[in-house]
Amino acid sequence: MLTDFMQFAVDQAKLAGVATYQNPRVGAVLVKDGHVLAQGYHHYFGGDHAEVDVLRQVTPEQARGATLFVTLEPCSHYGKTPPCCEQLVDAGIQQVVIGQLDPHPLVGGQGRQYLRDHGVKVITGCMSDVVRKLNPHYNHFYTQQRPWVTLKTAMTLDGKINSGAPRRTLISNHASYVDSQRLRSQFQAILIGERTLTIDDPQLTVRLIAMSQPPVRLVVLESSTVALQHRLVRDGQAPTWLLCRHAAASDEQLQASANVHVLIGDWSPAAISQLCVEQGWQSLLVEGGAHIQAGFVAAALVDEWISYLAPTMIGGAGLPAVTGAPATESLVFERPELAWLGTDLRLRAVRKEGE
Amino acid sequence: MLTDFMQFAVDQAKLAGVATYQNPRVGAVLVKDGHVLAQGYHHYFGGDHAEVDVLRQVTPEQARGATLFVTLEPCSHYGKTPPCCEQLVDAGIQQVVIGQLDPHPLVGGQGRQYLRDHGVKVITGCMSDVVRKLNPHYNHFYTQQRPWVTLKTAMTLDGKINSGAPRRTLISNHASYVDSQRLRSQFQAILIGERTLTIDDPQLTVRLIAMSQPPVRLVVLESSTVALQHRLVRDGQAPTWLLCRHAAASDEQLQASANVHVLIGDWSPAAISQLCVEQGWQSLLVEGGAHIQAGFVAAALVDEWISYLAPTMIGGAGLPAVTGAPATESLVFERPELAWLGTDLRLRAVRKEGE
Repeated sequence: MLTDFMQFAVDQAKLAGVATYQNPRVGAVLVKDGHVLAQGYHHYFGGDHAEVDVLRQVTPEQARGATLFVTLEPCSHYGKTPPCCEQLVDAGIQQVVIGQLDPHPLVGGQGRQYLRDHGVKVITGCMSDVVRKLNPHYNHFYTQQRPWVTLKTAMTLDGKINSGAPRRTLISNHASYVDSQRLRSQFQAILIGERTLTIDDPQLTVRLIAMSQPPVRLVVLESSTVALQHRLVRDGQAPTWLLCRHAAASDEQLQASANVHVLIGDWSPAAISQLCVEQGWQSLLVEGGAHIQAGFVAAALVDEWISYLAPTMIGGAGLPAVTGAPATESLVFERPELAWLGTDLRLRAVRKEGE
Repeated sequence: MLTDFMQFAVDQAKLAGVATYQNPRVGAVLVKDGHVLAQGYHHYFGGDHAEVDVLRQVTPEQARGATLFVTLEPCSHYGKTPPCCEQLVDAGIQQVVIGQLDPHPLVGGQGRQYLRDHGVKVITGCMSDVVRKLNPHYNHFYTQQRPWVTLKTAMTLDGKINSGAPRRTLISNHASYVDSQRLRSQFQAILIGERTLTIDDPQLTVRLIAMSQPPVRLVVLESSTVALQHRLVRDGQAPTWLLCRHAAASDEQLQASANVHVLIGDWSPAAISQLCVEQGWQSLLVEGGAHIQAGFVAAALVDEWISYLAPTMIGGAGLPAVTGAPATESLVFERPELAWLGTDLRLRAVRKEGE
């Protein structure tokens, strides 16, 4: 069965974790006479593509006339590595079974065309539903031309994110903290607002997982002055972009650091989304606060909602998870996925397509 | 095993559903020589007690020397029926195994004492954790001297109960509606505030389940005038108590209906709780709105939180489920129980004891 071998390729792709960064996760399996000759995957950003990882493991004799199962369409352009299509043709691969065509504008069906033009039999769309889930952010970015946006919040049963007093309130438990570190590692940019910066002084780093390309840190501010004393412009742990409404004397001082950028503009959710497009950040994790979240809901720029629900109640003075900018329409989500983290409940809901 | 027979008694007790009203649900099993002779339960408010239901099924000969398993301590006082203890002694029951002593002040260990004084061997506390769950509201009412209070809300993923506009917003789905009907049937009083009355014009009735003693309907109001045009003072479906801050000309007119009561006072959550004690309402379901809920959280008069979570988001202008009166302390709950109602999630959390 084609799907049996494609499942192996999917399993291979997952081995990369988040190390492929802005590249998609891709797995490949080389098959001849109904047996697997080799399995491989794209290990990390800048490393060999899955097709090459597989070909390296076999002799030219073995490769000739074999069938390659690969989760994503082989590339046809010179990027960090030479195009895989050429190498597959040169190796005498007879048939290529593809999970999903590559939505990247530099590939987009051209890999398949190249293979067919060179006498390789190509089947596409094998297990495409499963394969697509390997790279939801990458697929979304290149098909929708905007980043995948996830709103994340830690809240009480009554929907509050802090006590309402201007100091940090610890809502969720340690298991939720660990889980939110894993969550951060899957994003290329993390966004907070000014109040979250000043009250929480967060680092927004992935502390529990070593990362070659940590998510960039975005902060929406009136001006950069308030950022001066905060950790994320001082720790050098990841790039920090200060999205300011007004220029300030502190701008120049801050930009002296290679890791800090100051941009002046009207930073609506749409403008932030556009910045992500320009910078190639495929995914944006909006960590708060309540007003930033409301802005993204109002702009309908929400693809996913993740909340860590703690079994407590703060009551009427607590700050709601989402407050401020009114939305003109309700957003509709698929049935949430649930996971227990001790006594905290993680609730994950993906926006319903076409709504 | 003692617990095997007690489990049968628990299963019997559950057969009554909510029909026992202000009486506890009680099951009983009569055992002789290791075999069950009869099983019975308290069927409905005012009906035979479980002990009598069992004795009716056997001959005097069979009863003599038998062991009775009963989930709750047999009563020792003349209420709607003669005391069970006397009947058990008269029948020559040799041993009584009790799940839980009755917290009702008219029993409270006196049943056990009566049995012992008359030569019956008594064992107490058999499966007490399981048995206690048969009557959480009853137990709470008589041990804490206040009603069991459940806050119920239908909310979006972002914790909103309506769009913020002064009209009804439908949040939850039909399966949640059906479930909330079942929920209402388990309560002796239901409370709403003035805004919920005027915006939703609710009936607060249990429409899907026939009930001899439907929950009374409580509304907190400035004055009774606004209630005049609303269904719950006109439909005669259940008693309605209008808890008003100020007297009004409409009071007399409304009280002409046998089902409508007007009380003038300062209706804090504590005062409402006290009214329940005086009236013998063991359980109170607070259905909203947001300010009433906040009042009960602030007063720490919350025993249970039930929310129906719909997979939608309303955004920054939506009304939070709980808003208004500030609480001085967070309330802590046990790990919630979850149930799917289609794509809605019902989340039920019971307050942690001693917190």
